[in-house]
Amino acid sequence: MRAIFVVLMLSAFESSATSQQLNLMPMPASVQMKTGQLVIDASFSVGISGPSNARLQRAVELFLDNLRRQTGMPSLDMKVTDAAHANLVVNSGGANKPVQELGEDESYALEISPAGGKLNAATPLGIMRGLQTFLQLVQTTADGFAAPAIAIEDKPRFPWRGLMIDVGRHFIPLDVLKRNLDGMAAVKLNVFHWHLSENQGFRVESKRFPNLQEMGSDGLYYTQDQVRDLVAYARDRGIRVVPEFDMPGHSTALFVGYPELASGPGPYQIERKWGIFDPAMDPTQEGTYKFLDGFIGEMARLFPDQYFHIGGDEVNGKQWDANPNIQAFMRAHELKNNQDLQAYFNTRVQKIVSKHGKTMEGWDEILRPGFPKDTVVQSWRGQDSLATAAKQGYRGLLSFGYYVDLNWPASRHYAVEPLSDAAANLSPDEKQRILGGEACMWSEYVSPESIDSRIWPRTAAIAERLWSTRDVTDVKSMYQRLEEVSRWLDWLGLTHNSSYAPMLRRIAGSNDISALRTLTDVVEPVKDYTREEIATVEATSLSPLNRVIDAARPESDTARRFADLVDGLISGRADADEKSEVKALLIRWRDNQAKLQPLEAQSFLLMEIIPVSQDLAAVATAGLQGLDYFDRGERAPQAWATQQFALLEQAQKPKAQLLLMVAPPVQKLIEASSGQKAPLPQK
Amino acid sequence: MRAIFVVLMLSAFESSATSQQLNLMPMPASVQMKTGQLVIDASFSVGISGPSNARLQRAVELFLDNLRRQTGMPSLDMKVTDAAHANLVVNSGGANKPVQELGEDESYALEISPAGGKLNAATPLGIMRGLQTFLQLVQTTADGFAAPAIAIEDKPRFPWRGLMIDVGRHFIPLDVLKRNLDGMAAVKLNVFHWHLSENQGFRVESKRFPNLQEMGSDGLYYTQDQVRDLVAYARDRGIRVVPEFDMPGHSTALFVGYPELASGPGPYQIERKWGIFDPAMDPTQEGTYKFLDGFIGEMARLFPDQYFHIGGDEVNGKQWDANPNIQAFMRAHELKNNQDLQAYFNTRVQKIVSKHGKTMEGWDEILRPGFPKDTVVQSWRGQDSLATAAKQGYRGLLSFGYYVDLNWPASRHYAVEPLSDAAANLSPDEKQRILGGEACMWSEYVSPESIDSRIWPRTAAIAERLWSTRDVTDVKSMYQRLEEVSRWLDWLGLTHNSSYAPMLRRIAGSNDISALRTLTDVVEPVKDYTREEIATVEATSLSPLNRVIDAARPESDTARRFADLVDGLISGRADADEKSEVKALLIRWRDNQAKLQPLEAQSFLLMEIIPVSQDLAAVATAGLQGLDYFDRGERAPQAWATQQFALLEQAQKPKAQLLLMVAPPVQKLIEASSGQKAPLPQK
Repeated sequence: MRAIFVVLMLSAFESSATSQQLNLMPMPASVQMKTGQLVIDASFSVGISGPSNARLQRAVELFLDNLRRQTGMPSLDMKVTDAAHANLVVNSGGANKPVQELGEDESYALEISPAGGKLNAATPLGIMRGLQTFLQLVQTTADGFAAPAIAIEDKPRFPWRGLMIDVGRHFIPLDVLKRNLDGMAAVKLNVFHWHLSENQGFRVESKRFPNLQEMGSDGLYYTQDQVRDLVAYARDRGIRVVPEFDMPGHSTALFVGYPELASGPGPYQIERKWGIFDPAMDPTQEGTYKFLDGFIGEMARLFPDQYFHIGGDEVNGKQWDANPNIQAFMRAHELKNNQDLQAYFNTRVQKIVSKHGKTMEGWDEILRPGFPKDTVVQSWRGQDSLATAAKQGYRGLLSFGYYVDLNWPASRHYAVEPLSDAAANLSPDEKQRILGGEACMWSEYVSPESIDSRIWPRTAAIAERLWSTRDVTDVKSMYQRLEEVSRWLDWLGLTHNSSYAPMLRRIAGSNDISALRTLTDVVEPVKDYTREEIATVEATSLSPLNRVIDAARPESDTARRFADLVDGLISGRADADEKSEVKALLIRWRDNQAKLQPLEAQSFLLMEIIPVSQDLAAVATAGLQGLDYFDRGERAPQAWATQQFALLEQAQKPKAQLLLMVAPPVQKLIEASSGQKAPLPQK
Repeated sequence: MRAIFVVLMLSAFESSATSQQLNLMPMPASVQMKTGQLVIDASFSVGISGPSNARLQRAVELFLDNLRRQTGMPSLDMKVTDAAHANLVVNSGGANKPVQELGEDESYALEISPAGGKLNAATPLGIMRGLQTFLQLVQTTADGFAAPAIAIEDKPRFPWRGLMIDVGRHFIPLDVLKRNLDGMAAVKLNVFHWHLSENQGFRVESKRFPNLQEMGSDGLYYTQDQVRDLVAYARDRGIRVVPEFDMPGHSTALFVGYPELASGPGPYQIERKWGIFDPAMDPTQEGTYKFLDGFIGEMARLFPDQYFHIGGDEVNGKQWDANPNIQAFMRAHELKNNQDLQAYFNTRVQKIVSKHGKTMEGWDEILRPGFPKDTVVQSWRGQDSLATAAKQGYRGLLSFGYYVDLNWPASRHYAVEPLSDAAANLSPDEKQRILGGEACMWSEYVSPESIDSRIWPRTAAIAERLWSTRDVTDVKSMYQRLEEVSRWLDWLGLTHNSSYAPMLRRIAGSNDISALRTLTDVVEPVKDYTREEIATVEATSLSPLNRVIDAARPESDTARRFADLVDGLISGRADADEKSEVKALLIRWRDNQAKLQPLEAQSFLLMEIIPVSQDLAAVATAGLQGLDYFDRGERAPQAWATQQFALLEQAQKPKAQLLLMVAPPVQKLIEASSGQKAPLPQK
């Protein structure tokens, strides 16, 4: 199996220009290329052999819808037919559980020959995964649309592969969630973790406690019918839906309608700012548990999944400290500190969750000795925290390293291995308790317009980490395939590519965005929580999200390409075309400020990026000079290099909360041309 | 009023680069520019003074949704507030009719000053129109988003301004229709004519006659709930919904489930081909009218609009001729020919339509002497046909000249004046009977992916023809504003711009579409019904719609721009920049074939355009040589010119059903450089 894989890596990925390239993501466990291809024409048909059911039928219909869209053949002849005459025959051993469970068999075997395709799986879930692989194989070829002859055997490495979307901080409408579920299915993610309550908003209709949505959502919430609709939509795509209602903290929006649940005196208002806030539920009042029993009971019926996420993170304890009744309660119950009090609360909540037939899940903080062992811990803290939990018998999943709101490059997420660090040293049984991971889309800085661009395509790299075997780590191959998958996700209506130009047109106040695009193509939003840390005006949930930082993609493909070219140049690997590409890029960047300048007076949204644009021109000028020295084989003078390093240090400081991503490779170029190292930047 | 308009034309449109440009479409009846602007920030609010109702409230909420999207401010502070403190105050005199009626007052007056805006109208309908004008006024400026200070008084020229979408030949899903309704509202169209039945499909659920949708739709139909949903959606946007059920012809799909209605023996199958077909209802059977009474009754309740369109076009009479019973009936009733028989049928149908409280509408053919005068005639034949009807006392609307499926340039639709030709000579009373017109989107060659690009932006030019005063005819201004409106329609989710690149990527089988785009940018689909006439393979409803002709836009902006540049060059008006733009374009086109060629082997969809690409290279080469003669002030030799004219004649013949739109301007250039006229092409 390994030998085949290596052959594939060489033949398919190294020669990216040939039709042999396989744009599969996540990479299947085993791939064997064969000879020839299966042509897909307007009369392509799928047959179901073996047992069938409504979910399998819908999976096949959805597959055909996708195939029609992908090929631009709105064909009525492309249909489900009897297996004896079908171009693709699917055979699922049996049905799935009525409610999709953790760990259900998702494996499949797909064989394609010029004569037809066969897709076998133990369950419809495996068929769904295999059909997505089939779609990724379809390409435009000289002989029509076709899938290459191939034999694939595939199964996931981890059983829990999720995407969390925070709809509390910014409400995300149902249609946006649906297209993201389509994206999840396309890269074989299987858990949608719906973060439904936050200080800034409570987002589900409760019939029992209607003040929750009526007073805590600004009118922006999902009705129960919409929830059921989404859950069914997800199920048809092989995705579980795990709801999260964060408690006892992160719940200011709940207290607007039910202030009696809080530990401090009201009244409460929906929070508009970002951060960690004082309000927390009162763990000492029986009324709190009575409410939670009613509320969790209602939600447990609405969300069929076995798992129920209670959050449990980031309680600062200030309301508890300030409340004499709570202090008295703690003394009476020998609760030494707020951690103990929260553990008491969690234990009570766990009993309620359990009473309503669900298994509790929460963030790292919920874990305390003696807690029921079926609890699942979602770790924002990391592999060591997961390992500790696993050793204690708890199951866990990793989200540390998978926060897509932090604007990391895909390669950085891709390198995050759930079974690394302390988790690498677990026993096989303990390792089994690491269920997988979840990409997390926290929504301080996203709107329906921009959220897709924060999730995609990078989440596909995380999906590969969680699905594919551990040794699938080739970053170059990942980026090649990620680009293909990104374009392919366009067919599903995801807007991570298509929203870019309209956002730039708004910023420019003009349809002529060429200069603005050239600049925005080479910047990235600042990383981690720097956007907040260096903000000159505090951002809130009311802030506009229409700036260059909102339009800029988390990872600049242009800058990555440029950095690769510069590396090739310095190491002597670059050919003439690559050399002239470096020069052409630098010239374009040098001249861009002159093109952007006339627009500056007409848009308030351009003003903040004038310094970035000036930096780009200066950096490119330095780069061109460095390139010139390098080309002539002449060592650049030390004084000149020192001057450029100073300029580059300035240019690498965030401006308008943006990073100029071509500055580091230009610095390398100048280092190479001068034989000097740039001084380390002063913090 | 006229004087103000002229001033506006000079100050606003001639100086298109200034922030004074008003991108209003349709152009209001009266516009007066003032000094300053109203800044729109995240706390922009709207107040309702005077009477309010749910429809008005929703109109304002929709307006705010659009404003949030357009400005990228997902602001909760942007809201409806009390009129005393609002930035924009709307005042509607009274409510509209429960069901929107033909001719309801749509006028409005909008005044904007730096201190705030006032929008007054007699009804919520006028408020809706004025809010759309407000949205079009909002621009990115140096001081923030802002609408210029202005006073607008506006009202439509015609009361019936429609868009027909044929969902019979290709089914168009509900969400696609909804985004097109958003587009309609944006350009103040007020009738959605829903062409719901065709030989190729019957598209509405009938509870009374379920075979209609179950056997006649391939499963592609709207449920009654969806119909009600769409009607409500349209009403919230000030749009009436007129259903059309075509009879007695164009109804093969009905006969699949109810063959007894037809004039010839069954069984019937859903038609896959395009054209005019023999099957027609049997007008001599009482069963036909019994069915129609039940069916029309059901649909009359489902569709609240007063008007009910029965089609009535293109009956070839062959089934009637071949049916002895029908022939006997005609003799017995002294019906001399098939026209008489159809008139008999129409008279019966009219009584049924009338019995169910509706006013009948139909295509030209329904008009026969003695028919009830309240009938509305939709004319595909033209203004003379309309004038004849008006003289007889019938009301009519024009669709001749507004068929957007024929791939005409916007300027050609724009020039079609309802009150021209014989209609120009009508009396004032007769002219009143010309209600307006409808753009028609017949759907032989559109899918959900491409339909927006066939409707938009050109339909905005038709909308202006029907709304604005007759003297708004400046084509240059129209194109400038059309481009702005086109980009602005992007915010509504219309895909006429965004679908282009993905379609090209599919054709190229590659993400590198630069060469394919260069070519596709300068071609247009053949016009009128030529696509069918010159097809080498007969197209059907099963045909793929993924070719370059499907991706190419009906009107090439690049070619139009190039033609303008060449005209400027020849007439000596062109400046140095424009001259070098001509040359740069020609060089790019000359070199494009070399760039496209490497892709050709990898995609079957590229093969058919190789000759077009070769033509482009040859035409550009000729153009460059002509330019060179022209630049040198040297007369090009006759023999050379003759050779180029021959080449250009070849290049102007459709290939792959495409027209190379830069060939005619290059021919002009060669004529100018040689002093020769190209021979007229041989037909």
